[in-house]
Amino acid sequence: MKQYIKSIVEINDNRLSRYFSYFIQALILISIISFSLETIPNLKSQTKTLLHSIEVFCVIVFSIEYLLRIYVADSKPKFIFSFFGIIDFLAILPFYLAFGVDLVSLRALRFLRLLRVLKLVRYNRAMNHFTSAIKSAKEEILLFIFITLILIYFSAVGIYYFENEAQPEHFSSIFESLWWAIITLTTVGYGDVYPITLGGKVFTFFILMIGLGIVAIPTGIISAALTKSIAEKESK
Amino acid sequence: MKQYIKSIVEINDNRLSRYFSYFIQALILISIISFSLETIPNLKSQTKTLLHSIEVFCVIVFSIEYLLRIYVADSKPKFIFSFFGIIDFLAILPFYLAFGVDLVSLRALRFLRLLRVLKLVRYNRAMNHFTSAIKSAKEEILLFIFITLILIYFSAVGIYYFENEAQPEHFSSIFESLWWAIITLTTVGYGDVYPITLGGKVFTFFILMIGLGIVAIPTGIISAALTKSIAEKESK
Amino acid sequence: MKQYIKSIVEINDNRLSRYFSYFIQALILISIISFSLETIPNLKSQTKTLLHSIEVFCVIVFSIEYLLRIYVADSKPKFIFSFFGIIDFLAILPFYLAFGVDLVSLRALRFLRLLRVLKLVRYNRAMNHFTSAIKSAKEEILLFIFITLILIYFSAVGIYYFENEAQPEHFSSIFESLWWAIITLTTVGYGDVYPITLGGKVFTFFILMIGLGIVAIPTGIISAALTKSIAEKESK
Amino acid sequence: MKQYIKSIVEINDNRLSRYFSYFIQALILISIISFSLETIPNLKSQTKTLLHSIEVFCVIVFSIEYLLRIYVADSKPKFIFSFFGIIDFLAILPFYLAFGVDLVSLRALRFLRLLRVLKLVRYNRAMNHFTSAIKSAKEEILLFIFITLILIYFSAVGIYYFENEAQPEHFSSIFESLWWAIITLTTVGYGDVYPITLGGKVFTFFILMIGLGIVAIPTGIISAALTKSIAEKESK
Repeated sequence: MKQYIKSIVEINDNRLSRYFSYFIQALILISIISFSLETIPNLKSQTKTLLHSIEVFCVIVFSIEYLLRIYVADSKPKFIFSFFGIIDFLAILPFYLAFGVDLVSLRALRFLRLLRVLKLVRYNRAMNHFTSAIKSAKEEILLFIFITLILIYFSAVGIYYFENEAQPEHFSSIFESLWWAIITLTTVGYGDVYPITLGGKVFTFFILMIGLGIVAIPTGIISAALTKSIAEKESK
Repeated sequence: MKQYIKSIVEINDNRLSRYFSYFIQALILISIISFSLETIPNLKSQTKTLLHSIEVFCVIVFSIEYLLRIYVADSKPKFIFSFFGIIDFLAILPFYLAFGVDLVSLRALRFLRLLRVLKLVRYNRAMNHFTSAIKSAKEEILLFIFITLILIYFSAVGIYYFENEAQPEHFSSIFESLWWAIITLTTVGYGDVYPITLGGKVFTFFILMIGLGIVAIPTGIISAALTKSIAEKESK
Repeated sequence: MKQYIKSIVEINDNRLSRYFSYFIQALILISIISFSLETIPNLKSQTKTLLHSIEVFCVIVFSIEYLLRIYVADSKPKFIFSFFGIIDFLAILPFYLAFGVDLVSLRALRFLRLLRVLKLVRYNRAMNHFTSAIKSAKEEILLFIFITLILIYFSAVGIYYFENEAQPEHFSSIFESLWWAIITLTTVGYGDVYPITLGGKVFTFFILMIGLGIVAIPTGIISAALTKSIAEKESK
Repeated sequence: MKQYIKSIVEINDNRLSRYFSYFIQALILISIISFSLETIPNLKSQTKTLLHSIEVFCVIVFSIEYLLRIYVADSKPKFIFSFFGIIDFLAILPFYLAFGVDLVSLRALRFLRLLRVLKLVRYNRAMNHFTSAIKSAKEEILLFIFITLILIYFSAVGIYYFENEAQPEHFSSIFESLWWAIITLTTVGYGDVYPITLGGKVFTFFILMIGLGIVAIPTGIISAALTKSIAEKESK
């Protein structure tokens, strides 16, 4: 009996287990869409009831799935404290907690439901590539993230020095200036804050010339590591 | 006779067939420019008449071309239901449909004329590179588009959580927040919506640090595959 | 005598010729800065006189340089109609023309002086890399520029379809919409025009997902060709 | 005695020296955060006193560290005039200078304290990669920075020509137009200045098509050099 359930829940090489995994994936998507719909303001009470029913149904199925996975696991504690074990638990937790806690902390709790998206990762081989790519270039990525952070900090201090007097409402402190530094160095450029003094503009020019190259490096390293990881898979 | 027309319409290695293909290409361009000009508001009625005459002329030529291509095709049904067969048909369809239908649905129909641009693809070898590049990296592209979509969704939920109360007009629901997530992670940054709370700004910082790398990956894979596809062509 | 001047003006392996080339380069820079300063509004008449004197001095030196280069050229007509011969000529032409023509067309003429920047290219080896990189990937670049143009056009038509009714002042015709398409697909995103309808936003999402990859390709090809061209130089 | 202190201060292979380096790094971070906090407007006088005490403590420790490093250096003048010797000196200088100088020039002096961030570089191996990457591609980077500068200048002159009359407040001179050129070619696009004339928009289109590729090249070269430098380290 346990072997039969295990073959459905864990292993993906027979028809029933494939149907089971498609069913769970579909339910995750429905649950996410339903979660998003709930945030729309001024919903009709009918729609609210429908969305709540969907939520109850999803939680029941996910709870059964969670219990089944514990049941069929070779080592129960190992599964419960594994990455996917914790995700499965957190994905149903908010619903049960909602009975016990007051309404104020509910808002943050509701967002825990979003962790269900991570359940999808179980079915996604690309994540393996991604994880191994990150691991192989771990040291370089950390070092360049460190350089990027120093650069962002430098930019924030610099622009604070140049723009603080001219625009005290936007560059009131170095922490406020950090926002400008991030939005500029990533080239997002919302346009909510930008230098207006000559010094600030010249400083921005130099920061952009140096900064764009450096900010692009962690991205470049991840990209390169990923391409390598994919190429290795193909050559097998 | 059929062989002679076929040599002009289909094969591109004699003078007449080259003139024919240049003529069709020129007509496609004229047709597209004429289509664009029609959208300018407050045109003089003279200009409107001229543009309509051009349109009628183009449709007549494209219709003759379409019939000729059917006539010379080795297998008529195969051509009619091929990619270019359907494009050729849709490129002339809106004109003939305009006689039979009422004015309301005409607007959407007019835009079908734009499909004529795709007729140009027939004459463009670059598309082959592109198609084969897409095919060779199909699985990876799909997987990373999936990751990108999850990331965009995560960003939208996060920013909704932080900004909903402060800016209910811009972050009214997760669907509204998705717009922010897309425009920010692609670094377009129009500046129509941006976080104003401290939590939202810190969240944006982390999303940008992680996100820019991931969003760039599908682009990187397509680029790499294309470069490989071009290199293989050159080494032949 | 001619050999002696030639060794100074053309060949760069003795001290005098090096001084001569540094002098010309410095004068080009001074001339460009002076040109930029002239555009500042409300200059004092003293400053204006000074800038005009600098301009007269530069033109005299450049004229002598031009005549010397003709004098020492092995084949005079070949030099005059070479790329650098024409640049040298156009760099001094606006000054002499200013005597003969009326004031209205002077404005456009003044900008011809900017061509002096191109005189600097003579002293810059990087341009050779760049030119050979462009040449080696010429066909691919042209093809992908073609695809990029089609994509931009498609985006413009699509956004026109979705946004024309909601924002007739920004998306009044396909030509107006092209501006949006360019600024969005290059991720500049000024924020002067952006979609506000749901359809337009969803369309922008798809265009960005597909478009960013394609727009990046010509850039990628030039970069790759350049890197190859530099690597080949190094391995020599 | 000197050997014992040297083993703690300079060499990082025993427990005490590791604790010492962690202590200095922690102090650098505290000093930077304290510096940033000081810029927040309207601080309580208590907080100000606390931040000042932290500053005094940091300066004392850094001074002792500086003296110790001079004491244990094999060649004292060589250390004092080395990169890190100068950084260490400048990191404590502003504090001592504050006693001797008037208040007006203090503001600029305060920012010298930021140089403490550079003290962190001593502990960061990534900088070696970065420095060697920059060195190996030095010539190419310089040449393409030169091309980038010419391109930015060209763009500024062009947009000045097209937009000066329509928007004299934003494009009042070529120097003002340079700001637009930088923000556009790096795709930051704040949206504070953008072309509104047809000529300016068409010009922007061509500049973006050519420019994005060229501006990306120095970044690409640094990235490539870095990747090579990292790969070489790994193959050792």
